[in-house]
This record gives sequence, C-alpha cells and structure tokens, in this order.
Amino acid sequence: MYINTITQMEVRRKMTSRIPKIVIIGAGYGGIVTAINLQKKLNSNEADVVLINKHDYHYITTQLHMPAAGTDHVDNSRVAISKLIDEFKVDFVKASVTELRPQEKSVVLDDGRTISYDYLVVGLGGEPETFGIPGLKENSLSIRSINSVRLIREHIEYQFAQYKLNQERKELLTIVVGGAGFTGVEFLGELVNRVPELCRMFDVDPSLVRIINVEAAPTMLPGFDPELVEYGMRLLEEKGVTFKIGVAIKECTTEGVLIAGDEFIKAGTVVWTGGIRGNHLLEEAGFETARGRIKVDPYLKAPGHDNIFIIGDCSLVINPEGRPYPPTAQIATQQGENCAYNLVATIRNKELKEFQYINRGTVASLGKKDAIGVVGSKKIKGSFASFMKRVIEWRYLYTIGGIPLVLKKGIFTK
Amino acid sequence: MYINTITQMEVRRKMTSRIPKIVIIGAGYGGIVTAINLQKKLNSNEADVVLINKHDYHYITTQLHMPAAGTDHVDNSRVAISKLIDEFKVDFVKASVTELRPQEKSVVLDDGRTISYDYLVVGLGGEPETFGIPGLKENSLSIRSINSVRLIREHIEYQFAQYKLNQERKELLTIVVGGAGFTGVEFLGELVNRVPELCRMFDVDPSLVRIINVEAAPTMLPGFDPELVEYGMRLLEEKGVTFKIGVAIKECTTEGVLIAGDEFIKAGTVVWTGGIRGNHLLEEAGFETARGRIKVDPYLKAPGHDNIFIIGDCSLVINPEGRPYPPTAQIATQQGENCAYNLVATIRNKELKEFQYINRGTVASLGKKDAIGVVGSKKIKGSFASFMKRVIEWRYLYTIGGIPLVLKKGIFTK
Repeated sequence: MYINTITQMEVRRKMTSRIPKIVIIGAGYGGIVTAINLQKKLNSNEADVVLINKHDYHYITTQLHMPAAGTDHVDNSRVAISKLIDEFKVDFVKASVTELRPQEKSVVLDDGRTISYDYLVVGLGGEPETFGIPGLKENSLSIRSINSVRLIREHIEYQFAQYKLNQERKELLTIVVGGAGFTGVEFLGELVNRVPELCRMFDVDPSLVRIINVEAAPTMLPGFDPELVEYGMRLLEEKGVTFKIGVAIKECTTEGVLIAGDEFIKAGTVVWTGGIRGNHLLEEAGFETARGRIKVDPYLKAPGHDNIFIIGDCSLVINPEGRPYPPTAQIATQQGENCAYNLVATIRNKELKEFQYINRGTVASLGKKDAIGVVGSKKIKGSFASFMKRVIEWRYLYTIGGIPLVLKKGIFTK
Repeated sequence: MYINTITQMEVRRKMTSRIPKIVIIGAGYGGIVTAINLQKKLNSNEADVVLINKHDYHYITTQLHMPAAGTDHVDNSRVAISKLIDEFKVDFVKASVTELRPQEKSVVLDDGRTISYDYLVVGLGGEPETFGIPGLKENSLSIRSINSVRLIREHIEYQFAQYKLNQERKELLTIVVGGAGFTGVEFLGELVNRVPELCRMFDVDPSLVRIINVEAAPTMLPGFDPELVEYGMRLLEEKGVTFKIGVAIKECTTEGVLIAGDEFIKAGTVVWTGGIRGNHLLEEAGFETARGRIKVDPYLKAPGHDNIFIIGDCSLVINPEGRPYPPTAQIATQQGENCAYNLVATIRNKELKEFQYINRGTVASLGKKDAIGVVGSKKIKGSFASFMKRVIEWRYLYTIGGIPLVLKKGIFTK
C-alpha cells in the first residue's frame, strides 16, 4: 500500500513537472567520474542523465605511454563504458559532439541529432597544442587516445620493417620525442624498454636506434624537484636517450625536425607531447578561452553560464599562488566529484561547494621498474616510486570500477 | 700407425696439389640442398666448399605467405644456416653478391671482396617480374624474403591503424593481391583468416575490409585442375575475396591500381605475386637469359660454362612436352641434389647424371585447414590436402635438418 502510493506519486511527478536533464559530454576522467557519482547520488526521479562519448569505452590516459611504445596491450588502458555505467540510471550515447549551442541549451552530434539539456557538463578533453610550429600538426603523432597510440606503435614498427629493405635510410630508426613534460618522459621510459624487443623482432642492430628528446624549456619536467629531474635524466640517458633541453623545434617535415641552431634531425618518427590545449568546440561556441580552456568560477561553472560546468583539460583553475594548475588526471577526477556534488546540490536547492584541489602526490614513471615522484612532502624514486605509481592507478580504478576493475586492469596485466 | 700414414698423405696432398674450390651463391632451396649434400658426400681433402648468402639464415619460401599475412611468426619460416651447415666442411660467408665474373672465375661481394672459384653454383633465386607495368615495382609489396613479408604484415597493420584516425579513407582497408598463382592464392587463404584478428586488434568493422584479387590469366592457378580451381575460388569467395580474373593491372600508383576497363581500385595495400624472373646479375654478367633465367643443359650447367651450375629460380628446365617447368621449391630442391651429385662426380672423374624432375605432387593451401592439390594422379582437397601440404613441408625440413628441425619448425608452431 505504502509502496504503491510512492510509485503513483513518482509517476505523477514525472508526468506533470518535467525533471531536469543533465548532459555530460566526454567520458574521460572528469566526465566518467561525474556520471558515476551522479548515478550513485541521484534518485531516479530527480534528473535524467545522458553521457555522450565518441567511443564506447573510457580510456586511462595516464597509461597511454605504454601501448604507444608497445610495452603494453592497448586493451589494458581502456574500460567499456557499459561496465561503469548503470544503464537504468544513465543513458549512454555513442557519438561525437560537433557543436555546442549554449544559447539554445543544446549540443549537436555527428549523426545529425541535437540533444538539449538543462545542465551541461563539458569534459571534452584536450587537444595537442603545437604553438603554431610549422608542419608539427601534420607530421607528428600524439599520445591522446587509444587510436592515436595504436598508430604510434604501428608507425614505429613500420619504420623498422621498412629499414630492413632500405638499410641506407638509418633515419627510419630515429624517434624524436618533442616535449619533456610528464607524457614525454613517461613515453621515453617505455621506449627505451621497447627498443631491444623491436630490434629482436626486426633483426636490427640496437646501436643504430636513436631516441632524441627535444624540449624548449630549460629543464626536463619543468616545476618538478630538480634532484629528481637529474636522477630521471641520467637514468634515461644511460638507457640510450639523447636530450636536447632548452632547444626549440622550429619546424617539422615528413623527413624530421628542424631545431634551434638550424640543425635538422632526420627521423622516421616524431611524437609531439609538448603541449595540451582545450577542445576547439569551446572557442567555436563563443566562450572566452585561453588556449582553448575556460577559466571557471569556484564552482567549476563557465562564467555567465549558470548551467554549464567545465571540467578536465577544458577548464582552467587558478591555484592560491595565482598560477593555473596543470591539466592532469588527478585534477580532472576531483573536478568530476565536485561537479557531481554541485549538480545534486543545485537540483535539491542546496548550497554548492567550492572546488578545492588536493594534491595527492605526483609520480612520473621511467619505464618498467623505475619512477620519480613527490608524495606529500616526500621525494621518492626507484622501484618504490614505481610501486606508488601503480597504487595511484589502482586507487583510480577502484574509484570508477571497484575491486573487480582493479583486479582486471591493474594487477595481472603488468 | 695406419691412421698416421693417412693423415700425412692428406696433409701432403693439401700442400702440393691445390684442391678444387666450389662456391655456392645463395642459400635458398637449391643452394642449401647442394651445400648439405656436398658436406655429406665429399671427403675433406676433395674440395673446399664456400656458401655465400645475404642473410645468416635460410628461409622456407613456401611458407612466407603466412608471416606476410601475419598468421604465423616469421621465425617459423627460417632456420639459422649455422644449424644446417657443418663449419668444418663448409665455409659460410654472410655477404651479398654484387657481380659475377665468369671469365675470371670469381664473384664480387658487397663488402668489396672478390672470391674466386673452380666451380660455381648459382642459386641466387628469383625477383618479382612486373612485366613493365608502370608504377608496379615502386608501389607494390612482394612475398620474397623474410624482410619483405615482415614489411607486408606491418604495412597492412599500419593501414588499419591509420584508418582509425581517418575514417573517411575506407580504401586503407582494401588489399589488392595481383596474381592468382600459387603464392597469390596461398596468401589470399591466409589473409581471409587474418582479417577477423586485424578487425579485433583495431576495432574495425569487418564488412569494411576488401580483399581483391586481380589476375590477367583466364583462370586462377593456370595449369591446375579446373575442378580444384573451382573449389578453391568458391571457398575464398565465401570467405570474402573478390576475384577479377582475366583482368590485367594497367598501372599501379600510391593510391591503388588501374585495371583493364579503366576501373581504378583505391587500395592502401597492393601485393604483387604475378611473376618471377631470374636474378638480374646473370644478365649483367653477359649470360643469355629469358626473363633472367638461363636455359641449362641436361646436367644443370650454363651453356658454354662447364664449371657453372645454375639451379632454382635462375634456371630454366624444359619438360618433355617442350614447355618450361614452373620455378618451385620442389624442382629447386631436386636440382640441388643433382647438382651436388654432379659436382662430386666431376671431382672424382665419374660420369655425370642428367637432371630428371620427379613431380611428387603439388598442393596449394587455402588457409588454415583447407587446400587443393594433385598427388600422383589423385586430386585432393579439404583438410586431407591441408595435411598433405604439411607432410610435404616436413619432408623438406627432414631433408635439410633431420628430425630435430621437423620437430622445431614443422609441428609445434602451427
């Protein structure tokens, strides 16, 4: 009798007053965490939640340097969205967003559909920032998605295979990595581990393979502890990386890169990891952006748009010292949690919570059993740091998929 | 005392009268079988035997369609020459021959050395014959060596990886195989088995992949039993191959192939299996050749050169009906045996033996568990034919490497 009454009330409510519709675009760190938190916190009559993503899987961007180098299978860096989302609570739409229409409260999809919303969460992720360097966009590869890293692995193998039939073209065995930020350094760490295997696969003399890092900033991992940077650089150098630090790439062609000092490095492969900007759709929709990113208010909303939340690589959050936080998985995940909280609060007419970034530590891997990092105020390096890197991964996997996901993706696959 | 006398005699003989030097160039079917037979039959004081080959391994050409398609590891199609040759009996030199100098009884190597000989065995193998079709040599891949098939596998995978980032370019998923002879058909059989795996690897819809065979002759496998040809074609068609039989390729570009009727087939991959000619070094050395092949005398000697034997794809042997035997592994192997016999006979001043080709049966595989063939006067097809194909492989492995090689390469690897 009691249950019956509730049900009838709900039905009436759904029929008479439309419930709000939350549309989340992008299922990266920010988007998927928002969706998972909403499905936990919201009752089914409180809101309709729609998650729109280009692929039917979520990928773990912080692991992509491994399948890119070919040291791990690409499937270990992704999870089917159907495993993370309760389809009774969240509608999943597999499509690319091609346009944002904030005035009309809608987004346009590549299949021609228009999806309207009451609240929008933009978690579209970043794009490579090539700073206008001529030819870089056209002639370099980037570590940004499952498809893009699969291409890097195949591209490198294809260069090795071609070399065997054109042995005067030694440049086919040269790999230039542009940028020595997190992604660049972690990719270098995997590459030096992969080279021996590549040489065995293709009967190539390892001494012919060159891995060159070109970074315009005066140091590898700018902003990181100098002692740890020194440790990491030495380790990578010992394993065969040549560093050109404080050297800018001036141009990229199909043959290689021209660097400051007018040296041309012939290379079969150029991977650009030197910059991330926000998604181009934001600028196109008329938002005010800095390198494609929107400086959000304390509640992660786009200025002047009370119903639009911006999280992840598309958002710009200023730290207490007045500088922007770098775009990381860690901040995106925390933004997802905060965004979901604020959406629930909005719907329930409760008070919103300001976003506070908590630095839970930063670890950069340097290949299979080495890493450098800062956790709390402690500097760590070596195999312990490498272990901590995995703990951070496991924590994330646990957050989105519980223990089953940790067991499936986090342990047995390494 | 007796042994001592023998040894002293040998030493004296070696010192006083120079023993003849046999140089074998190429360690394909013909060359390796010649070398193995010579090391079995010759006493150490009878001749010096030198085997020269570009690679330090012998490869099993009749299996290369598998690593080319990616259905088997390339290492299963090769054997280290050191495992086949007794280094106390045969000197192995890893080098490419760049010139033959029959007048001076020597060959020139790519490292600049000149090697002189008393007897020369030419087993340099074939080269793709492109019949002057414009662009075919430059823009197609061929199944002719470990390196070339590794490139085919990597090329196809690279096209699939590129497609995922350029999904309007569906032609990246099209593979054109030119030629429906033995190699072409066996490659098609493996390709159709590989496609499902490729589609899983790259998340590609299998219905988008096109495999097109273009053959100028009026039938697949010209000269083969028509009933078996019909069976094979139907089977491959069912698995997704489109046949264009009786259709010539007019031109090959980086974009695909132009075929008779002025149809242009856009394709990311073009593999040419449509013809084999002899090695270009023979023509360059002044030998009279037909498509690079020398019509040998009944003892496999080059006309007018009593000390030069030509075997394998470089030789032309006319059958009793007056037509040339097609160049196969089977004939090359038998030529190697005959050539070794005749070299030993020459050195011992015995009578030479005319070369007689014995057709031990011909089987063309159609993928993992199917094949068509004629053994004796019996037509075979299906899994029994596929088994017979393997028996033929095992027999060859046994001939060159005994039971250990059969166990290593022939059984556990499939």
